[in-house]
Parts: sequence; C-alpha cells; structure tokens
Amino acid sequence: MKVAELDTPVLLLDADVLAGNITYMKEMTEAAGIRYRPHSKTHKSPVIARMQAEAGAVGICCAKLGEAEVMAAAGVDNILITTPVVGESKIGRLLHARNTARIAVVADNADNVAMLGDCARMSGTRLDVLVEVDVGQGRCGVRPGAEAVELARAIHRHPGLEFAGLQGYQGRIQMVEDAAERRAATESGLDLLETTVRAVEDDGMPVPVRTGGGTGTSPFDLGRDTLTEIQPGSYVFMDSRYGGIGWPDRNAPPFGQALHILTSVVSRPAADRAILDAGLKAASCDHGPPRIADLENALFEFGGDEHGIARMEGGGEVPLALGEKLRLVPSHCDTTVNLYEQFMIVQGGNVVDVWPIEARGRVQ
Amino acid sequence: MKVAELDTPVLLLDADVLAGNITYMKEMTEAAGIRYRPHSKTHKSPVIARMQAEAGAVGICCAKLGEAEVMAAAGVDNILITTPVVGESKIGRLLHARNTARIAVVADNADNVAMLGDCARMSGTRLDVLVEVDVGQGRCGVRPGAEAVELARAIHRHPGLEFAGLQGYQGRIQMVEDAAERRAATESGLDLLETTVRAVEDDGMPVPVRTGGGTGTSPFDLGRDTLTEIQPGSYVFMDSRYGGIGWPDRNAPPFGQALHILTSVVSRPAADRAILDAGLKAASCDHGPPRIADLENALFEFGGDEHGIARMEGGGEVPLALGEKLRLVPSHCDTTVNLYEQFMIVQGGNVVDVWPIEARGRVQ
Repeated sequence: MKVAELDTPVLLLDADVLAGNITYMKEMTEAAGIRYRPHSKTHKSPVIARMQAEAGAVGICCAKLGEAEVMAAAGVDNILITTPVVGESKIGRLLHARNTARIAVVADNADNVAMLGDCARMSGTRLDVLVEVDVGQGRCGVRPGAEAVELARAIHRHPGLEFAGLQGYQGRIQMVEDAAERRAATESGLDLLETTVRAVEDDGMPVPVRTGGGTGTSPFDLGRDTLTEIQPGSYVFMDSRYGGIGWPDRNAPPFGQALHILTSVVSRPAADRAILDAGLKAASCDHGPPRIADLENALFEFGGDEHGIARMEGGGEVPLALGEKLRLVPSHCDTTVNLYEQFMIVQGGNVVDVWPIEARGRVQ
Repeated sequence: MKVAELDTPVLLLDADVLAGNITYMKEMTEAAGIRYRPHSKTHKSPVIARMQAEAGAVGICCAKLGEAEVMAAAGVDNILITTPVVGESKIGRLLHARNTARIAVVADNADNVAMLGDCARMSGTRLDVLVEVDVGQGRCGVRPGAEAVELARAIHRHPGLEFAGLQGYQGRIQMVEDAAERRAATESGLDLLETTVRAVEDDGMPVPVRTGGGTGTSPFDLGRDTLTEIQPGSYVFMDSRYGGIGWPDRNAPPFGQALHILTSVVSRPAADRAILDAGLKAASCDHGPPRIADLENALFEFGGDEHGIARMEGGGEVPLALGEKLRLVPSHCDTTVNLYEQFMIVQGGNVVDVWPIEARGRVQ
C-alpha cells in the first residue's frame, strides 16, 4: 500500500529514520562509555523497545506501572518505573508484573518505601528501589544530600528492599533552546546528584545506578561520569520542539524527524485558508501547534477538535487542493503518540508494516 | 467496588448527574418545540447515544466518519456527520456504513458533492447531503446566500443525492462567557442561516433540516424557529469552561458536572506542593488546566505528561496526604474523554458499571 492511499489523519513512522536514530544513540553512548535506558513513554511500543534492546540499551524506562505491565507482558525485560508507585493496589500489581520481568521503581517518601518493602517481603521477594532526588525539576524527589541519604538508608535496611541507586532527572530543561543555558542547567543538576552520590557512599552504601538525562541534555550528560545511564525518550521520533533547539558548537546529534501526522485537505472555503482533518484529537497542543512539513511558509492553526487551518505566512493563497494529503511534524511526540492506536511504518512512500501502540492510554 | 478503591487516574461518570442532564435537554427542547440531535463527539459512547435516543433525541451527530461507523455498528440510527467526507476511500466507507444505519453528511464543495453523488449512484443508492454554511465560524462552509443556493442546487440535481437541508454551526462562540455577547453572536449566525434558508426555498428547494447550535447557545437557539434541531454535545458531561459561562437573566440551565478525573497524590516533596498522578496524558490542556474539585482554593498546574502539581492559591501548606484521592473537573470534556478507554459509572460512592469509550481515537 502507498502512503498516499492511507485514510487520514494517521501516524506515519519512517522506518529508516527511526533505525538511524536508534543507531546514533547507541554510538553516542558507546563512545562515552555510558549505558542508556530509553524512555518508552515516548513510543509505548514493545516492538520499538525490543529494537532499542537489540541496539544495546540496558533496559527501558516506563513512566507508569501500566506501561511496565504492557512491556513486561510483551517480553521486554529490565524496566525502571520512573515515577512513584503508591498504594497497596498498585504495589500488588507491581509485584505481580515482576513475575515476568525485572522491574525497579523509584521512591521519594519513607511511608511509600515502608509499604513497598512490607508488600515485597510478604510476597517473599526483594524489590529494587532507587531514590528519586530533585536536582532542579521541582516536582517529585527528596532534596539532594542528607534527605536522600536518609531514604537510601531506609531502603537499604528494609529486608524486602534492595537500594539500587539514585535518579535525578530534569524534564523541564530538555528543550531549553539555548545550548549554553541548557548545559549550565544540566551541570548544576549533575553536581547536585554527584554530591548526593558521595554522601550516600560515605554513609556506607554503594550507588550502583545513577540514572537521569534526556534527549536534549544527552551531549552534556555523556560529557561527564556522574550518570551510569541516561534516559532519552524523544530521540527515536523527534518533534518540532526538539528539532528547534540549539546544540553545542553547532554539533547537533543527527536525530531525524521519524514521526509525522498525515492529514488531508477537507475544505477549501477561501483562497487564503485550507481546512485539514487533523485537530486537537489528532495532534497534541501542549507544546503549541504542529508544523506543516510539506508546504513551505504554511502555518498550522488549531480549528477545534477535528480541524486544522492552514494559512500562508503573511496571508496569500494556500496552494493546496481538496483531498490533497500533507505531513505535519508533531510539536510534542509523546502526547501525540498517546492519541493513536498504531504507527503506520513507512519506507520510500510505501506502508511496510503496522505496529500497535500497545501502552497507549496506560496512565495508571 | 467503592470509587475510593479505584486505581488512578481514571474517568468517573456520575450516573445521576448524567441522567439529569439528558432529561433537562429533553425538556428544554420539547418546551421549545425544536428537535435535538446530540453530538456524540463528546462521549464517543453508543451506550450514551442510546440513552439520548430514549430521551427523544432525533438522532446523533458524529464529527468523523470513524465515529459514525462505531455508532452504526452498535445499532445507533439516524446519524449526521458534521464534517465533510472527502475522497473515494472514505466515501466508500460511508456508503458501506449506510447499510446498517441512516447516515447523512454535510458538504461545502462542488467537487466533493459530485464525487459523493457519483459513488452513491454507482452503489445504487441516494445519499442525504446537507450544505454546510459558514455563519461566522470561519472554518468550513460555503458563504451564506448565493453560494449555498448554488451548492444546494448541485446536490438537488444529482441523481445520487438528496438535498436534506442546511447546517450552520459556530463552535467558537459556545463558550463566550458574557451571555449578551454570546446571544448577539448566536442571533447574527441564525440571521445568516435564515437568509440562506429563504434563498434556497425561493430557488424552489424545500429545506427540511436546519441544524446547528450547541450547549452554550442552546437557550438562544431555542428562542427562535430558525433551526429545526440543535446539536448540543457537552451538556451530557459539562466541564470547567462551560461551568463558568454566564446565562441570560441568571437563568442557567441546570446542567451538572457529571464527569471527573480521579487522581491520587503520589509525592509530598514539600509542604506547599502535592504531586498528582494526572498529567497531560490524563487531562486535556487545550482549554487550560483542570480544576481541583475536592479541595477549595487549590490550583492545578500541569507537571508534564504524567504529573500534576497541586498548590494552594497564594501559597501555604497543601492539606493532602500521600495516597489521598481527589477529583478534577476537566477543562474540556471532549478532548479529555478522548484520552481514555472507559468510563467508570459511579453512584453514591460506588462503581456501578463500566462503559467502553468505543469511538475513542476514531479521527478518520
């Protein structure tokens, strides 16, 4: 089947660009001697998780337990859940999922640690727990230093738990456009994590895993040895926000735009606007509107749940015919992927495969 | 099962408030002597579509062909697709879906009309087509008056088509907060539609259906006889945007908030913030952040794909414990529902049923 024959809106994933992105991350991390654990919250696809594992990834990250359950059931191993798993019901599900895969979890709270440990012990197992440290994100996490040592000790001492390391991640700096500013924020977070690693080690506990970092900070994360592994997610697909950030010394990692939304012109009510069939239910808006890839100087404007409006920069006639199909670059790949059931895998104008987005909507 | 035992984030739908909203719309339209065709793009659920039909709805609206296919397959009859269906592949699907339900479609383009008619004729059938008129939305639609007459004539003359009426809908005015301003915009749109109805009738074609209007403009739409049916969607669930608009003479329709997101506190890193497990993948952001329902003076801030941050207005300690569950009011019900697979139906603190959101993600 040809891409041009697909009903729209539909998510296109370029097989070659995807493979290139996966290879480049492997080479980048190998050269730095640092492992990588890609974040599956971006793709939510066991197929892609397996491709990443074949390219040397040490395992994967999942944002939620529900994603980890899907990945474990599909045979993906060595999973880190990067947000706290709270309450007996979810901890029960976590312990159950561990029957099929190795799964570690982060924690930032003593009560949560006690419950994780007690539940693990009652199931006759030991659970790997990392301490989440707030190195600048201002979201979850204990404070660097003494607070982290105290929680690490609580994990270390609990017979149902194994202290596995520290997580220090800053999502909000990944897309800072200025490379120098992004580097400075990365360094300051890594400094805080490093201080904390030393404090925990000084307290007598080894810190085998130090995990964090993302696509935007990867060149800086890999430039020092604070982290033992990085957690990039978006590099597999890329999006218009990541595509627009600056890199050090103009030396941008060659990640290509693998993901597009194919949309159609469904109305030509006036010369200066074309109406597309992709709206808020086909493209996420949390990072702004998508970019029109196949028509220069055209701007996308959301026109409601099911419509987009294409106009030319500075006005003028939009050279698009009724029924014409064109590609959009999502502004945020993670939240856009979460709207769809499947990727249409494309190669040179042909659809060569269909991969389900199995963990779509797994927010629990 | 108790609501408090549910894993989160999860979508709660209050059975009694839902039933009340459906009943009130029935009474409102009955009193006005105008039919109603609720928009199923809000709920995407055949169960709710059937409840609306039982409460006297003349049929339903679908925003996309894919939604209509789901509704038709589930036995819902008399469907109007409110956006153009363009291209041979989709028109083929439309004609196929018409084997199970009556389905009409809108059009705003002569080429599209010709293709609809030719395809219908080749399948040995006649298709009901309404002319979409742009009465102020600035999206799809022909201009009121002569342009609409011309397209109505093309439909009327085509042996494969039946001219079924006119659609004039303004989504963008539904949530204008000021009632007088919203009334004025409604009246101006209805005036344009009325002029067009007369022009088409003067040209010798009856206009059996005049459809448009929504939840926000319903009191004004029902106050005159321009429309034969209104298309309200959000009234079944409501959201924080609709909940905040003004109504004429303080006489607000008593639509209640039937839909909530249940979320949990997963981290208490500091006194002045609590971290919730609902982020951009659990609550849509196109109309701003959701509102925290169960804690007065608390504000919700998006903290990424999977996190929300609760703070108190003006700072101060957030009185929420780790693991505590609380409800959010979505800022936009349609796009929030589209993130989930199912509604948990609740009544007095108990979960009494689970309804699948069958048309979720059906953007094609």
